[in-house]
Parts: sequence; structure tokens; C-alpha cells
Amino acid sequence: MNRSNNNSQATKLTGEEVAKHSSRESCWVILHGKAYDVTDFLDDHPGGPKIILKYAGKDATEEYEPIHPPDTVDKFLDKSKHLGEVDMGTVKQEAKEEDPDEAERQERIKTMPILEQCFNLMDFEAVAKRVMKKSAWAYYSSGADDEITMRENHSAYHKIWFRPRILHNVEKVDLSTTMLGTKVDIPFYVTATALGKLGNPEGEVILTRGAKKHNVIQMIPTLASCSFDEIVDAKEGDQVQWLQLYVNKDRAITKRIIEHAEKRGCKGLFITVDAPQLGRREKDMRSKFSDVGSSIQNTGGDNVDRSQGAARAISSFIDPALQWSDIPWFLSVTKMPIILKGVQRVEDVLLAISAGVHGVVLSNHGGRQLDFARSGIEVLAEVMPELRRLGLQDKIEIYVDGGVRRATDIIKAMCLGAKGVGIGRPFLYAMSAYGLPGVDRAMQLLKDEMEMNMRLIGCSSIDQLGPEFVDTRGLSMHTAAVPSDTLGLNVYDPLAGPKEKAKL
Amino acid sequence: MNRSNNNSQATKLTGEEVAKHSSRESCWVILHGKAYDVTDFLDDHPGGPKIILKYAGKDATEEYEPIHPPDTVDKFLDKSKHLGEVDMGTVKQEAKEEDPDEAERQERIKTMPILEQCFNLMDFEAVAKRVMKKSAWAYYSSGADDEITMRENHSAYHKIWFRPRILHNVEKVDLSTTMLGTKVDIPFYVTATALGKLGNPEGEVILTRGAKKHNVIQMIPTLASCSFDEIVDAKEGDQVQWLQLYVNKDRAITKRIIEHAEKRGCKGLFITVDAPQLGRREKDMRSKFSDVGSSIQNTGGDNVDRSQGAARAISSFIDPALQWSDIPWFLSVTKMPIILKGVQRVEDVLLAISAGVHGVVLSNHGGRQLDFARSGIEVLAEVMPELRRLGLQDKIEIYVDGGVRRATDIIKAMCLGAKGVGIGRPFLYAMSAYGLPGVDRAMQLLKDEMEMNMRLIGCSSIDQLGPEFVDTRGLSMHTAAVPSDTLGLNVYDPLAGPKEKAKL
Amino acid sequence: MNRSNNNSQATKLTGEEVAKHSSRESCWVILHGKAYDVTDFLDDHPGGPKIILKYAGKDATEEYEPIHPPDTVDKFLDKSKHLGEVDMGTVKQEAKEEDPDEAERQERIKTMPILEQCFNLMDFEAVAKRVMKKSAWAYYSSGADDEITMRENHSAYHKIWFRPRILHNVEKVDLSTTMLGTKVDIPFYVTATALGKLGNPEGEVILTRGAKKHNVIQMIPTLASCSFDEIVDAKEGDQVQWLQLYVNKDRAITKRIIEHAEKRGCKGLFITVDAPQLGRREKDMRSKFSDVGSSIQNTGGDNVDRSQGAARAISSFIDPALQWSDIPWFLSVTKMPIILKGVQRVEDVLLAISAGVHGVVLSNHGGRQLDFARSGIEVLAEVMPELRRLGLQDKIEIYVDGGVRRATDIIKAMCLGAKGVGIGRPFLYAMSAYGLPGVDRAMQLLKDEMEMNMRLIGCSSIDQLGPEFVDTRGLSMHTAAVPSDTLGLNVYDPLAGPKEKAKL
Amino acid sequence: MNRSNNNSQATKLTGEEVAKHSSRESCWVILHGKAYDVTDFLDDHPGGPKIILKYAGKDATEEYEPIHPPDTVDKFLDKSKHLGEVDMGTVKQEAKEEDPDEAERQERIKTMPILEQCFNLMDFEAVAKRVMKKSAWAYYSSGADDEITMRENHSAYHKIWFRPRILHNVEKVDLSTTMLGTKVDIPFYVTATALGKLGNPEGEVILTRGAKKHNVIQMIPTLASCSFDEIVDAKEGDQVQWLQLYVNKDRAITKRIIEHAEKRGCKGLFITVDAPQLGRREKDMRSKFSDVGSSIQNTGGDNVDRSQGAARAISSFIDPALQWSDIPWFLSVTKMPIILKGVQRVEDVLLAISAGVHGVVLSNHGGRQLDFARSGIEVLAEVMPELRRLGLQDKIEIYVDGGVRRATDIIKAMCLGAKGVGIGRPFLYAMSAYGLPGVDRAMQLLKDEMEMNMRLIGCSSIDQLGPEFVDTRGLSMHTAAVPSDTLGLNVYDPLAGPKEKAKL
Repeated sequence: MNRSNNNSQATKLTGEEVAKHSSRESCWVILHGKAYDVTDFLDDHPGGPKIILKYAGKDATEEYEPIHPPDTVDKFLDKSKHLGEVDMGTVKQEAKEEDPDEAERQERIKTMPILEQCFNLMDFEAVAKRVMKKSAWAYYSSGADDEITMRENHSAYHKIWFRPRILHNVEKVDLSTTMLGTKVDIPFYVTATALGKLGNPEGEVILTRGAKKHNVIQMIPTLASCSFDEIVDAKEGDQVQWLQLYVNKDRAITKRIIEHAEKRGCKGLFITVDAPQLGRREKDMRSKFSDVGSSIQNTGGDNVDRSQGAARAISSFIDPALQWSDIPWFLSVTKMPIILKGVQRVEDVLLAISAGVHGVVLSNHGGRQLDFARSGIEVLAEVMPELRRLGLQDKIEIYVDGGVRRATDIIKAMCLGAKGVGIGRPFLYAMSAYGLPGVDRAMQLLKDEMEMNMRLIGCSSIDQLGPEFVDTRGLSMHTAAVPSDTLGLNVYDPLAGPKEKAKL
Repeated sequence: MNRSNNNSQATKLTGEEVAKHSSRESCWVILHGKAYDVTDFLDDHPGGPKIILKYAGKDATEEYEPIHPPDTVDKFLDKSKHLGEVDMGTVKQEAKEEDPDEAERQERIKTMPILEQCFNLMDFEAVAKRVMKKSAWAYYSSGADDEITMRENHSAYHKIWFRPRILHNVEKVDLSTTMLGTKVDIPFYVTATALGKLGNPEGEVILTRGAKKHNVIQMIPTLASCSFDEIVDAKEGDQVQWLQLYVNKDRAITKRIIEHAEKRGCKGLFITVDAPQLGRREKDMRSKFSDVGSSIQNTGGDNVDRSQGAARAISSFIDPALQWSDIPWFLSVTKMPIILKGVQRVEDVLLAISAGVHGVVLSNHGGRQLDFARSGIEVLAEVMPELRRLGLQDKIEIYVDGGVRRATDIIKAMCLGAKGVGIGRPFLYAMSAYGLPGVDRAMQLLKDEMEMNMRLIGCSSIDQLGPEFVDTRGLSMHTAAVPSDTLGLNVYDPLAGPKEKAKL
Repeated sequence: MNRSNNNSQATKLTGEEVAKHSSRESCWVILHGKAYDVTDFLDDHPGGPKIILKYAGKDATEEYEPIHPPDTVDKFLDKSKHLGEVDMGTVKQEAKEEDPDEAERQERIKTMPILEQCFNLMDFEAVAKRVMKKSAWAYYSSGADDEITMRENHSAYHKIWFRPRILHNVEKVDLSTTMLGTKVDIPFYVTATALGKLGNPEGEVILTRGAKKHNVIQMIPTLASCSFDEIVDAKEGDQVQWLQLYVNKDRAITKRIIEHAEKRGCKGLFITVDAPQLGRREKDMRSKFSDVGSSIQNTGGDNVDRSQGAARAISSFIDPALQWSDIPWFLSVTKMPIILKGVQRVEDVLLAISAGVHGVVLSNHGGRQLDFARSGIEVLAEVMPELRRLGLQDKIEIYVDGGVRRATDIIKAMCLGAKGVGIGRPFLYAMSAYGLPGVDRAMQLLKDEMEMNMRLIGCSSIDQLGPEFVDTRGLSMHTAAVPSDTLGLNVYDPLAGPKEKAKL
Repeated sequence: MNRSNNNSQATKLTGEEVAKHSSRESCWVILHGKAYDVTDFLDDHPGGPKIILKYAGKDATEEYEPIHPPDTVDKFLDKSKHLGEVDMGTVKQEAKEEDPDEAERQERIKTMPILEQCFNLMDFEAVAKRVMKKSAWAYYSSGADDEITMRENHSAYHKIWFRPRILHNVEKVDLSTTMLGTKVDIPFYVTATALGKLGNPEGEVILTRGAKKHNVIQMIPTLASCSFDEIVDAKEGDQVQWLQLYVNKDRAITKRIIEHAEKRGCKGLFITVDAPQLGRREKDMRSKFSDVGSSIQNTGGDNVDRSQGAARAISSFIDPALQWSDIPWFLSVTKMPIILKGVQRVEDVLLAISAGVHGVVLSNHGGRQLDFARSGIEVLAEVMPELRRLGLQDKIEIYVDGGVRRATDIIKAMCLGAKGVGIGRPFLYAMSAYGLPGVDRAMQLLKDEMEMNMRLIGCSSIDQLGPEFVDTRGLSMHTAAVPSDTLGLNVYDPLAGPKEKAKL
């Protein structure tokens, strides 16, 4: 049986019809009341075929919704595979298995703290951990390998101490600054993070509204749950947005995305350069496994293949061959300033200046890519003295992200020479726990903290900050406070002394 | 209804009358048997209006007492709002809610250790933690943000090691020294700490008596629970006191305070320069929240506003515009030596010398203001070599406070060049747990420890101490023993290995 | 009674006959259905006489099997002591004592995770710890003294951070390299580890098959459970193996072993130089004690003697007099390249070059010999700059082993100048938990991780790696992350504050 | 009533008679069947009067025995106070209170591990902790203040790593060396520790026998439980002993002690120079408190006085005025070599050389005197390079003690230039747990470990050891592995995130 691709046809499909196509040989799924033939797409699915086959012949909307932007099907599945509407009344409702984890989560939601009990950004994370779905939490909170870089990102700030000055007039504190020419109220921006609907059904547009309220810039992620246009549509007035870009092998697609973003008013193009391949995040893999793999008992190395498959699948989307010689092309196709996101050593900052880009983000992708990559703030402390030595400090704007949780972290970055810092996960957690009011309060707390701490360091405006206010000796030393090696510690069998002898 | 401000009138108010004024529109409260109309004062209350409204129309004495000096009402509330005496027999007694926390505390008090079981200053803290009211403990024990500076203050001493000498006559050990010309028996002073009545109903005068007994100086805090005059009245004979000063925007008020202190015999004026705005102390905020906010279920960002309000309220009292150019004025209005309290880098010590003040306290306000401010002892180790290099070491007296818990800490500070160290919280804890005998024993323990350790380091008087007796290499290195990041650790979700599969 | 050594005789021995010889004076044991008179051998047994006497007059096969290669009896026991076959039907079956530990282990095996749940090499260790026999786990997992070097081996990698480059074409990543002229698919080899049958009844041949599947080299251990020839027989096609050699005092035996290995095709001779005496591994000693010693109640220092005895026994096998002047002889008796395994300082690498050997392994024997020996990776960071300074970096191949658990560890070693890294325990654990599929998956996971991380560091082939990609400042500093001193911490009695007084 | 001091009188005292003298005004006690009038001695008792008054009118033998050498009464109590024998049959037996702690200890003794289960020196400590009386354990195991130096002593060895050499003939390892001209089998000596009978009823003579068995030197403590002569009488053959000396204010007494020691054959005089006053050891004080003070409920600072009293009492015995100018006198009164025990910095080693003494012990008194004194091994690493620079390394013998637990620790000290190391507590623990067999096994374990580790480092005799075999970079850095601040951590109240709200 082969249905025409005439989407306008009057006769709806029945659930029974769809249910017949529940195998690898013929696999249909229902999404938002429409059926699709995904048989040929199975092997191209970035998440692997197994997760689709679980819903073969069934309604997959609930699982599909948070992790795919609305325009996904149109973009990736040929119209000929769009089978048209389904009479949803005829689709068999599956009795959901009772999930004790989910029941416990619902209990936790009933007693979650009220918003006013959150006094800092970590508090939102603590609440989100308790009230988010386990798989969503795993996706947001996971990092590469042993998650040492992920944790180092915040720890690194703890190696920097202040040298505050006293007796300067700090009655009025002005937190405003500019980023790529845009005036903002406080020197952070909402950096790009994927799959916002995992945390909140409305997704990234909540961050758009929060950013507006506090006059900061939002960077729109390539892998958003909302479509690009939905996010742009959500901005108000002269609100400014940037675009984060994973470069597609097919430069025509990339060009279309860039031109569209520029047309829609984006004011900066942040090209991700630290992710030629998406990182292995084991916490996330373990969480997915329990979804997909728990009934599989064969030990035939199938999983190894699957992971390779995913890697290959993603290689077909992100271009691992992206290189310095591609930069002129980007400069030629857009008037937006171009910023390289994910620079990790001073040599590459110098190359970026030579290449003529307008900025770099010193970043390790939130610790989600290469474990043992150094923190952005440490790289910043390496970069700026060298730029100053070469007289290049004004040739490029330097941003930094990863691990920012306190206003003191922001102040440290500004003292060391950053133009601004990107904050990602904390706003995701605030949104996941409390929606827009959570994001609003999180940003307000940062402002309160920053006003306070600017006063305490003895500065009343951003331009007064400088390296003389920080003691970074602990940072350049690379020894202490290496986050502990959780896995290694778990498996290490400690020595024990003599045991009691048995009683006679 | 509008009552005259004739306080001498014979007719007392009834509880019923007062109870009618229990709203934001008309808010009366009873304090020590007198009624006050605080309606217009609500928004000016540094602690926010909510805490007052909780007692609107009621007797607020018990809550009010420990955190306001006796002269507060006269100072801050216009006479027209003093409504006169209340017939307390007519005031309805509220049945107190049973508080399980308080019941448990009363149990702990029954089994608290006897005084002789306290062998060091930490012991008093351990006991105080168990027997103090939760909110009082939270106020005393809290620090800024992640409390890393607060903990670093003591840890920093642990990075300094001794190089004792041997075979010097230490039969008689003389611990006495001078501070701002006053001879004292041991080189510490009781530094200013706020709200003493939270720990003991008599408040700061207990510290006055303890200081007398051991012939050390007490610094009187601006924010004491006792009035300034009560504390001065408590001194005996030629006992010496200093004044700690938060500078008021209204310099006339400040001048009055200074002149009054000088007249009452204060021998030093310690101007706080590290607190243009009072710090955010989250442990304290959480504790207050459970008092004030627990019944509020709206998530409308109300709390954010309140915290801003508090910040603004306090700005109206402490002058955030205080600056170097104000110093000559202070020198002109008093003959007392002037000391800047809260200096945190060598540059500012040099400025202080130029400004002609008589001393500085290297201090970060007990870790209650700027988190990641360095410890006073570390700043001292930075300051003294530079002063010696410039030949300025005798131009100014250098004090240090924060984290002193052992006589070895005092000795380390003296070796590095301090004239004396300030000790605050430990005496508060001793007072809170055991009253004056506690303070007495705490001071005696320090003397015992110090006599012992002077002998062991090979010195029989303070002037023999010098930098050759300490190894500070660990201090100048800024890496190790960073106190752990409690909040971050609490929310971090550790990686886990494979889980057991379900049994089949 | 004295039986002839005619093995071919028809009459089988009965169990009853054997059982008579159950004393130190006359001690027979049954192995694989044959009886042996080991009376005279008791004192020469490397494991001490006690363990044999436990089986005097009985069938010892089950205990004997995993820790002796099949040819042991022929090699070490004179033919005259081979008493011939036993009629096993006549041997009394001993009722096995129920062992609650073993019962619990069997339960754990029932719920062990499936192979796909292992996502990294530590996971196999976690599973192996749960499902292996206690004594086998103790043997594999133990290290010398406080096991500080053993743990440092992996920790040391955590002191090295990456300096990744961006925007290089990493579409195709080639992990292949050569070791001693052999092309391999990824720069690790399976290093020699003893007693494979403790983990899996098939023993080391499983590692042979795994190495073949992933085209890496296996180093055959002297102390394998399988015989050398069994392991060589298990190789396929042009698979390459190396030989690890403990040098026998009797050089004729050593020569025979070397010549046989060369004849059988071994392509490298790795002479162990860090084990003139086998290390004290207390975790293992405690485990053995419960087997052998638990019923002994005398406290007469007997055990001290036994440990000395074992040391002496092993001295009679491994030559503690091996020295630099022996090296020319080795070079003269084989054409195989010679590599010194266990070099621990740069001076000895230079001597090795002078001596004309072809390689060294910077190794501390997996932390099983000298505690506080530095990690191989730290020694590598000391060695390579010196070799480059002297222009000797191409004169010798440098390998490193110990603590490698992640592909990032391999990459760090390659950046610092290693030709390859040896991995031992992780494959033993994978084999012990899951057999060949476990080894297969462990190797595949390393390949997946390495391909990913090569991309993320910005390199597409091994020869691109170099010291500019790593930040080793933390490594050269020798301070932080010293693994904790478990035994010391266990016995340290922490200070405690005052205790509650008793209620009256 | 006043009895004559005629000890030979026939009539024995009755228990009833003695019991009448049970007050501060008239205080008699019975010791070993004899009565003594200690009324006038009460205030001179170094341990304070309270502990004696507890036994006023009673038999105090059990408490007295372990902490006073047999000749104490004769030495310190005038003959006129010796009241003669008591008819012990008439002394009322006190029903002992049941002590649950003691009952639990007896249970633990029943299941204590057998000696063969102890594989290292820490094992003895673990066993001793479980089976010793609480007060005895507290006395042996305690250190000064926060016990940071006490723990640092062993930790410091963990900052030193080996650089072993390979391929040297280590078949025969010779551990012997000389100390002050005496040949010993292994380079450690049994250092002086007080009150041996707390751990074993026989006391220090057990250590004498153990030292003989392993041919090492014993240093006899001034504060031994056995008398000096008992300990000397216990030596056999040409066994060598040294004397540790606390210098008495009365130099005549000191001279008598020295001359007697020389006459009895002591071969070295170790003058303690780090204890002008005995240290405050809070663990011990808390333990004593529960004995003496638990029934005292007054909070009148009584305890403070008592501690002062104890300090003064001890000052009357040990001379706090001992100084460099006294040294020539010591050199004049004895031919024994003189060694200063407790030197803590290089300056004082140079002074010791000038003063003409024969050796120094770099020691901090086992961490029992000045907390934050550096470890002996760290001071050694400071001292030797300076001595070598000045060409003085052969002018004096340098010993080190404190924290030695492993043969690797001994080897590290020898590599750094020590002539030998002192070991104290470990042998006390071995003796307390297992008596002489324990001491024997502890020493044998050290020999086994040392033979092994000499081989592994590539040296076959002590004189081959040198600084090139150790990496001390971590030691000179003074940052990491500062032992944690137990008391501080116990009282610190960690920050907590938001709490659950109450269910509605």
C-alpha cells in the first residue's frame, strides 16, 4: 500500500491502518494528528532508529514534541512521506504504565519551594533537579566524560580573589555596558542552549521574554525546541537577538540560515567552533538507555554500533571539516558581526583577529564537549595579557561563558577584560522550575548581587573594573581544587585494616 | 481617630483600641507598654514593612527588644506618633503556637555541656549553635554569598607554619602590648559586632565587663542592641573603649555621634569603610523568610522588590558616597585617633598613611560583605613587606581581624607585623552560651594558650616576635584549602555507574 | 611406600590411598585426576607450604587451576613425583561449606548490568568488583603499601589539561600508528598482567582474541594462567604479540624462553626491571589470610617468617642481581627489539639509550611495587624535554603505562611524546565481568572516545599531536590531589567538641 | 593524731584509720599496701589535687600504678609522711561502678584481630584504639591544639615521591648503619615516650626487649612508668640505650641523673629543647575531665585556675629558662655525646654546631607541643642543603622523628640526609595491643618493608641513598594536603538551599 502525498485529501486515516505499519520494513508514526512514513528515514535519524521504532504504528507526539522544533518534519521528511490526517478517535489509547519515578516527582512538585525561597542561581538548579523529568534533567545537567571540565568551569572562579578598593563614591552604580554595539543593562547575555521544551512546554520564547524584561541579549540556538521564527517573533520593540550557528556541510543551507537571521534582525552571528562532533555525555546516555534499551538482553555490541551511528548521523549535519579558510566566506555572506564561539587558547584568538572576525567566546561548550578543556575564565587570564602586550586588546571583543553563577563571577570576568559573559543552564533551570517568573527572578537576583558587589569592590561603573582588582595567582597555578573524580572514587576499593576475628 | 502627642496624659489606651489599627493603612504597635503609630514609618523600616505588619495592633515587644537599642523609638519616630501608655491588662494574650524547633532547643539546653568542658574558642561556637535561637544563630553565623571568605578567614591561618627557636629563656612570658597608646594585657581587642541581645538579654555590656576583667579594649558597635551610653556606663575605672562608626549621610548626625563618643572617653574612632551597603547573607535571609514569608504563596516577584527596598532603606542610613576626600573632615572634628576599618589592599594602606589617619584594620567584615575578599592575615602579609621597603612601617598601626580562634593565630599576626587582632564572633558565642563566665573563660583560654605558645616559639615578649618565626609560603600561594563550595556541591548530581538490571 | 614414576601404569590410585598422605611428612595432592607427591616441594612453593597443606591428601584442582599454567607441574616437579592417575570415583567428595559471601556474589551476578550499560572503562571495574570472587578481585585490584601510587597513576592524568585548537579539518580521523614497526589501529597495547584465569576460566587467550579484533598488540605475561604456547596458538593471521619477561637467575632458562618466543614470532621483548622482588600488596595479603590463616590462633610471629619465605622463594626465580652489564647479553641472544619495562627517571632513559635497547616503558608496575613511585605520565613529562634538548628523541621508543582509563589519557600521553600506552587492569575487568564481548566493547569504547576527542582537540592524526596541546603546569607542581591516605584516615581519631552532660 | 615515721613498726594500720583522713585538711592514701600522708603534697601534685582527693582515705594503687615509676614516693615524699603498712584485709572493698564503656571494651578485646592480621604499623594503631582504655588511648594519641602538626607529620612524607633507579644488583640488601658510633641493624631507634604502663602493665621494658631482638637503640624517657634502673636492668649483652632528658631547674638533680645514666652505660644524652612547658592536648584534657570533673556543676572558672596550676607545677620541674649558654655545662659534666632533641629550623642547627653538641633531632615532639610547627622531615629538607652549602654536613649527626609509619618514610629521611629516624607511638600501640610479640612483629614488618623497598629503589645499602632518589618539590611548596581542621569543620554550619514548603 502506498498513499498519495495529497495532504488535502478529505478521507482521514484510521488508527488501525497506521498500526499495521509498525516494523522496520514499514514504519509509520502519528505526530500532532498526522501520519508520516518514516521507514526510509530510520537510519538517518540523529537519535538512532530504535527510539522511533518504539512508536512505530503509534502516536509519538508526546515524546516528539519537546525535542523537535515545529518545522522539523517539513524540513527533513519529503512531502511524499506526509500521509495526511488521522482520525484520532480511532487511535487506540495505550494504558500508560505506572512509573514510580514519575509518581515521586509529582509528589516533589507538590512541595516544591515557592519562588521567593530562591536566593541565588544555585537554588533554581536545586529545585529543578527535584521537579524536572529525569531525562530532561539528565540532558541539561550532563557534561563530557567525567564532567571534570563542567565542574571546573565554576570552580575556576573560586581560584580568583578580590582586591577591593575603599572610599570611592559608590552611591549610584551603573551596570550597563555595550556588546557588539548594543547597550545592555548588565554585562551578561543568555547564551544558546538546546531543547528548551524539555524544561518548559513553551520553550525558548520564555527566555526571550525574560531577556527583554531585563534588557539583555538572547542568543538563539540552532538546536532550539521552538523554531527560529517563533523565537524572533517573541521579541519586543528594539530587543536584540544573536544567532548561534552549527555550520552545515551544505553551505547553501548555512547561507539560507544566515541570510534569514540577518533579515529577521539578528545582530550577531556566533559560529560554534568547538563541536565538530557532539560530545559523549554519559549521564545523558545512561538516562536514554533506561528509556530505549532496558528490554534488550543481547550483549552483541549492538550499542556500540548505535553510538557510532549517532556520531555519523550528526556528522552529516555539522561539518567537521570547517576550517580557518572558510571564514572569509562567512564574512562575505553577512553584514552581521561574526564571533567564533568555543575558542580555547590564545593562539587561536590571534588567528581570529587575523581572520577579521569581530569577537570570540572563550568557551568549552559548558563542559559538554572535551573533558579537561580549561575553563573560559582561565583562558581569558591567559589571553588578555598577551593581547595587551601586542597592543591588540581593542581589535576584538572577548566573551566568556561557562560556570557563571554569581555576580562576583561576572565581575571577575569583567576585571580580567571580558566584554560580557554568557549564562545558559541557570536560566534553563529557573525556567524549568518556575517558568518566566523564575527567569525574571534569576536575572533580578544577579542584578541585586552585582549592584551590591560593585559597591563592595569600590566601583560604580563597568569601565572602572580592571585586573588590579583581582588576585589570580591561584588560577595560573594549576593544582588545587581539581574536582574529584567521581567514577574513579566510586570504584576504588579502599584499603581496610584488620577485621575482627570471629567469636569462638 | 487621631490622638494627641501628650505623653503625660492619664488615660491609658486599651488593647482593643490598639487592635483596630492592624492594617497597612493604620498600623499601631505596642512596645514596652506604650503604643506607637508606625503607619508612615512602614516603608522606611530597614527590615521592611512586613515584619512590622505581622504585629500590627499587637504587642511587639518580645520581637523588637533584642534588635533595637532602647533609644530607637525616640530617635527615629516623631514624638507625634508616640501614643502613650497602654493598659496591658486589656491586651489580649495570644496563645503561642507550639514550635517544635523551640521545644527541641529547650531540650538541648537541659543537656548543654558545663562551662569547664569548653577547652577552646570553637567549643563555645559548638555549644552556641545548639542552644541559641535559630534566627539568632543565623544572624551571627552567616556570611556573604557562598561564605567562602568567611571560612577562608580562619583557613588562611592554617597556611602559615611556625619556625620556632629553641633555648631562649621563656620562664616569664609577658603578653602585654600597647594599642593606640593604651597598655593591654594581651594583643587582642573585642571588635564590634551587632545585635548582642540576640545572644544574651543583657547584650554588649557583658562584653564590656569581660574586657575589663582581662584588661583588653572593647570596640563599641554602631548597631549594638544596648545604647551607646549603656555600654559606656558599664565600663569601670580607666577601662578603654573605642567606637566603631557607620558614617551617616547626614554629617551633622555623624558629628554628634563622634563628639559624644569623645566626650564619653572613647580613645579611638574606627570608621567602617568596607560596607557602603550591607551584605547579602543568605543563611540569614532564609532564616528570616521562614519567619516572615512562609504563608505567602504568590510568586509575583514581591520578594525581589523587598530586598531592593531594604537595600535602599539602608543606603539612606550608611553613606555609600563616603570617599577619601571626606577624611580631612573627620580629622578636623575629633582628637581621637582615626582608624579605617576594612582596608583590603596595600595601595589603600599607603593612601591611608597619606591621608594622615592613625591606623587601619585589615578586615573583610568577618566575611559578611564581599565574598572572595581575601583574609586580613593574607593582606597583612602583602602589606608589611611593602611598608618596610618604603620605610613606612612605623607611620601607622596595623590591625587585623577575622578568623582568629587560637592564640597561635594571634602570634602569627603579631609575627607578621600587626599591632593587635580583633576578635568578634567567638566572644558573642561564649556570651550566648554562658554569659559573662563564658566570655571570661574564653579570654582566659586565649591567655593560657598564648603563654604556652609564646614559650614554645621561644619568645618571652611581644616585641621579640617577627617574620623570621613564620613560614608563609603556603599563604602567598593561592591555591590550596579553598573552602568547599557547599551550595555547588549540594546541587551537583554526581555521575553514577551502571545500575543493576531488574530481576527477570 | 614409594610408587614408581611410571605414568603409564594401568592401575589407578584410589582416593583412600592418596588421603593417607595428608601431612607435612608425606604430602600428596590430586590435580586434574592425577596424584603428585609434593612433600619435598613444600618449602619451595612460592605461595608458601600452608596453602598446599590445606589440600594434602585431597583434590586441589579447583584452587590450583586458575593460578598455575598447565605446564607448571611438568616444569617444576620432577617426574619421579608424578604418581599417576587416580580413580576419581573413589575420591571422597567434600561437602562444601556454605559461604555466605559466595551466595551474595551469586545474587549480584543475577542482577549484573547488561554489557550495553557500560559506557566507559570504569564501568567494567565497577561491575567486576561486584561479580568477581573476592580473592580474585583482591589480587587484580591491589597495589603496594598505601596504594597511593596506584591511585596517583590515574590522578596524574587529571593534572593535565587541554589546549585544543579550532577550525582544522577533522572530518576523517586516523587513529593508527606504529609500535616497534608494527602498524596498529589505535595507540594502545594490552600490557602483561598475571593470572588471567582468576577472572575468566579461559584466561589470557580472550585478550588475544580481543586484541586481534581491534588490531592492537598483546604483551604476553610471564606469569600468565595460560601457557605461553596456548596464548601464541590463539593468535590469528599476522597478529603481533610481545613477550614480557621476568629474568630468571638461571640465564639458560631465560635464554630458552627468549629463543622460544622469538621462534614463535614474538616481535618485542619487554624485560621487567622494576620488580627485583615482588611487591607487598596488603589488600591481597588480607584476602589470602582469610583463606589460609583464619583458624590459626597462635601469635608466634609465624606469619612474619612466611612472608620472608615467600620473598626468598621468589628471589630464587626472579633475579634481583640483574644489572646494566647484563644488557649486552640480551642483545646478543635475540633479534627481537628489547624494551626495558619499569623505567622511572630520565637518567635511566639516557642509560637505556647508551645500552642500545630499542625502547623503554615508563611504568611503576601499576602501583604494585614501590609506593610513592611517580606516575609514568609524570616521568614522561620529565623525560621528553630532556631528550629533545639532547637531540635524542628519535633514538628510542618511549611507552607509558598505568592509570589509563580514558581516550583523553591516551591523547595526553601521545601529546607528551609517547609512542603508545599500555592498558592492563581495565581489560582484565572487562574480561572478568563479560568475557570477550566485554573486552571487545571496552576497546571499542576507547576508539569511540578517541575519535571524538581527537576531533575536539583539533587533530585528525596521531602525528599532529604535540606538547602545545596540553597544559602540564599542574603536573610539574607536586602538590595537589595527592590521593588520600586511607589507612591513616581510618585510624585517626578526630578531635571532638564538648559532649552533652548527662541528664540529672 | 601524728604517727611516727618508723616504717619498721609491727602494728599495721587499719583501713578504718586511714579512711578518717579523707579531706583536704588531712589526706592519706594507700599505695601498694602502705599508707602515705599527702596532705601537704596536694598542691604540688603536677596533676592537680583533685585527682588525689578522689582517693583520699582509700586505696589508690590501681590508678596510681601506671602513671608513676616505682621510686616516685621515695623521691618526692618526705620519709616522715610514710605511715607504714596497712592491714589490707581491713580496707573496705568498694563496689566498682559498672562502666558501660569498659564493658564494651572487654567485648572488643574478645574479638580483637590476631597478631598475624597486622600487616603494617597503622594496623597496630587501629587495634590499640579499639582495645586500650579510653584514657590511655587519649594520652598516647593526643596532640597540641587542632592536632594539625600531629597529622602533618605523617602527611609530609606523602609529599615526597621516589625517583628509583633500575638495574643495580640488589640481591643482598644491607640495612645496617651506625648512630653515634653504635652499629644498628636498621636505621630507626625507639624514641622516648612517656607512661608506658598505660598501655601494658610491664611498661617500657617491653620496648627494651623488642629493641634487643632487632638490634636497635632504645631512648629511655624521663617520664617513663618504669624507673630508669628497671629499664637499664632489662637490657641484655652489649645492647645500647640512650637517655632522654627534661632539664630540671635544680641542676644538681640534673647532674645526678646524667652521671647515673653515664655510669649505667647510656651512650647518648638527648636533651629535650622543645618543651619548656608541656603542651595542651585537648583530647587528653577532655578524657581526663570525664574522670575528674564530671560531677562538678559550678561554672566559676575553677578549671581555668587548675590548668594554670598544672602549668606552674610543671614549670617547677622542667626548666623554662634553659638556654644556649647552658650547653657548655652539659658538655662539662658528661662524656656521653649530647644531642638536642626538638630543633625546628636551620638557624638552630647552625647554633648547635657552634655549641659543639654532637647531634640534633629535628622534631616537633610528635605534634604534642606547638601546633603548626613544621614536620621534622620538612625541616630536614631545609637543613641539609644549607649544611652542604656551608660544608658542615659532617660536623653533626641529624636525626628526625615524627610521623614515621612506613619503611618508605625511613628511606625518604635517609635520602634527605638523616642518620636515623625515631619511632615512638607505633611501638607503644603494638605493645598496648599485643605486648612484646606486637613490638617484635612491628619491627619485623619495618625490616621486611625496608628490604623490599631498598630493592625497589635500586639500592643495596644505606650509604647509597641520597637526594637524587627523591622528588621533594611538593614538600617545599607549602600548600596542599593541609590536614583538615576537624573542630572548625564540625562547628561550621553549611549553607543549605531552599527547603520544601509545608503541604497545604
